Amino acid sequence: MDSKIVSIKIPRVASSYAITIGGGVLGDVGSWSIRALGRRAGRILIISNRKVFDLFGAVVDASLKKSGFETHIHLIGDGERFKNLRTLETTLRTLSEKGFTRTDAILALGGGVVGDLAGFAASTHLRGIGLLQIPTTLLSMIDSSVGGKTGVNTPFGKNLVGSFYQPNGVLIDVDTLKSLPKRELTAGFCEAIKQGAISGRPLFRKTARFLEAFKAGDLRNAEKYDLLADELTSLIRDQISFKAKIVQNDESESIANVSARSRKILNFGHTFAHALEKATKYRYLKHGEAVGYGIMFATALSKKLELIVQNEVDLLNDVVRCAGILPAIDNVDQSEILDSFKHDKKRVGNSLHWVLLRGIGKPIIVPDTEIPQSAVSSTLKTIFQK
Amino acid sequence: MDSKIVSIKIPRVASSYAITIGGGVLGDVGSWSIRALGRRAGRILIISNRKVFDLFGAVVDASLKKSGFETHIHLIGDGERFKNLRTLETTLRTLSEKGFTRTDAILALGGGVVGDLAGFAASTHLRGIGLLQIPTTLLSMIDSSVGGKTGVNTPFGKNLVGSFYQPNGVLIDVDTLKSLPKRELTAGFCEAIKQGAISGRPLFRKTARFLEAFKAGDLRNAEKYDLLADELTSLIRDQISFKAKIVQNDESESIANVSARSRKILNFGHTFAHALEKATKYRYLKHGEAVGYGIMFATALSKKLELIVQNEVDLLNDVVRCAGILPAIDNVDQSEILDSFKHDKKRVGNSLHWVLLRGIGKPIIVPDTEIPQSAVSSTLKTIFQK
Repeated sequence: MDSKIVSIKIPRVASSYAITIGGGVLGDVGSWSIRALGRRAGRILIISNRKVFDLFGAVVDASLKKSGFETHIHLIGDGERFKNLRTLETTLRTLSEKGFTRTDAILALGGGVVGDLAGFAASTHLRGIGLLQIPTTLLSMIDSSVGGKTGVNTPFGKNLVGSFYQPNGVLIDVDTLKSLPKRELTAGFCEAIKQGAISGRPLFRKTARFLEAFKAGDLRNAEKYDLLADELTSLIRDQISFKAKIVQNDESESIANVSARSRKILNFGHTFAHALEKATKYRYLKHGEAVGYGIMFATALSKKLELIVQNEVDLLNDVVRCAGILPAIDNVDQSEILDSFKHDKKRVGNSLHWVLLRGIGKPIIVPDTEIPQSAVSSTLKTIFQK
Repeated sequence: MDSKIVSIKIPRVASSYAITIGGGVLGDVGSWSIRALGRRAGRILIISNRKVFDLFGAVVDASLKKSGFETHIHLIGDGERFKNLRTLETTLRTLSEKGFTRTDAILALGGGVVGDLAGFAASTHLRGIGLLQIPTTLLSMIDSSVGGKTGVNTPFGKNLVGSFYQPNGVLIDVDTLKSLPKRELTAGFCEAIKQGAISGRPLFRKTARFLEAFKAGDLRNAEKYDLLADELTSLIRDQISFKAKIVQNDESESIANVSARSRKILNFGHTFAHALEKATKYRYLKHGEAVGYGIMFATALSKKLELIVQNEVDLLNDVVRCAGILPAIDNVDQSEILDSFKHDKKRVGNSLHWVLLRGIGKPIIVPDTEIPQSAVSSTLKTIFQK
């Protein structure tokens, strides 16, 4: 064809932000926000849910006001089922009604649901405004607060609509975990084990050692919390550093990257977890709990394919047990699980990439076309017999 | 506060894409798509409206199929009022229903409404899939196809929700302009004049020279089209090159950048245009027509502030006249216009940045705090007296 071509190169600037971790840091959120946003105090929309806002809202709001911010509060429903386009639209309407401009910001105060929704709203209002993340669950501290993934669920599945959008800063107050329900802790630690399993011996050992001391416990017990607080802070920091390293190299989870340092390895345990959540209609299991089962499944599948030795399998299962009790899954329909694998969001063209282990700290990405269907279904049976 | 800090740096890779411009290139869209996407043919969702699809859909669809693509068609309503969150949601549902994965793509075939909506859908489905833009109006060829702005309107205003998302490629078939209604042409040329006015003498002269020959004509006249086709192609290419240069330096329209090379200068004529569109409920004027008035207003305001000399003002107004007849605006309520300035989307904190001219090719950004209210309202009167 006879045509002329104009080439466009968009040289993106590197974006960077800091994750600040400490005990009792919430009281300084005002001055931290000014530093993180790098500009004068403007408007801030605090997005949270009733439960979390009742616990920490007053402290955050007062500190922001003291630093000169004009604060507005937007509470959303508690739970995955509120992380949808409807809630996004309500949030965007609030931003417009309050006249939020590009120099204003959203502050997400809560767990993954609040963080993902707030992040998506921040990335799309006026094509992007400021974003501050204050995760208050263990899972969101070590997982969703790093990596810039935002999004909402649709009737077709979880996180099917969203964006990549980096916050201006993340503030983690470990003391917020003092009020976290036990199931939420277990869920968070399952993600920690997942990251330990793919990262290498040191982080895995540190996670295992902590859980040995934690022993499916409860941090709402003040004595136990005081005993573990320092180690917990250190563990969270190392978990975040690991995830940060992966994300830095592969922000948008490039399709072509299937190396052992690809962002894809963070999906270890997640193919089974997503199927399990879907089969239980996202209501029965917490995401982290499903990941607990997912770790056991992916490990068992790795064993079935003779990639990993038995004592590493035992070690991993032991550590998952120390994280807490997972809700029973006897009633789940196995054929629904198999069917879910066929529709997994991470499918690339016609193949699904499994993240398996050649050993602790040795993830490997294997397309399902290379795995006999019988290996998958017999592993499925083993898991459900437990 | 006693805290630890983990820093995260996301080193973004430069993204680049090509804009291919020619006559009759639509017939090769299949092989072009493979080159632009840089991978094997997968699924493509053609997003268009009934009118445009009836004109060019068959050619595009056949060429894509011939190159091995599995095509699906998604038609949306024709007009700005369909560029909303409802249509976005329907489009996202279609992508999920058809099982579009991250290696699949959207192809936008149409004007700005189709392009903006399709781009937003592509940027949010699975946090981003492939995007091919085929603009079929003059305005979208020289304006919205370059720059990566996507978005939808909300009840609060135009393009208030969206993202920055670069396409994999843009294909411009100048021959599609043969069937463009006259008003659409006028609207497109107004944007061309706007870009000429802020870019410098050469592009302004080229635009003016072309319009001198065009003389508010109609390209549906085959003889006229054949006479002007080569010059038109060359003009479109230069217009795009200019916009590309601006966008490359300032992809996300950074707030701090108020230099004469900031992306903000592209908003020349747009503050008044937006107010006019809003006051007429987005139904009476085409965006480009409103920009035509916006150019005259911003130029008159520049004269009122003694920034520009009278014969440059006359020259600009003459060229706008050559673009075609603008619908009369006698019935517009001037107080609504003044009110709109107060709520302009481009406000930064409490000030609105006007783009004015110190001469043709010499844009300057002036905060409204530095402009006497009387200058704005008396300029308004002049425009409405015309």
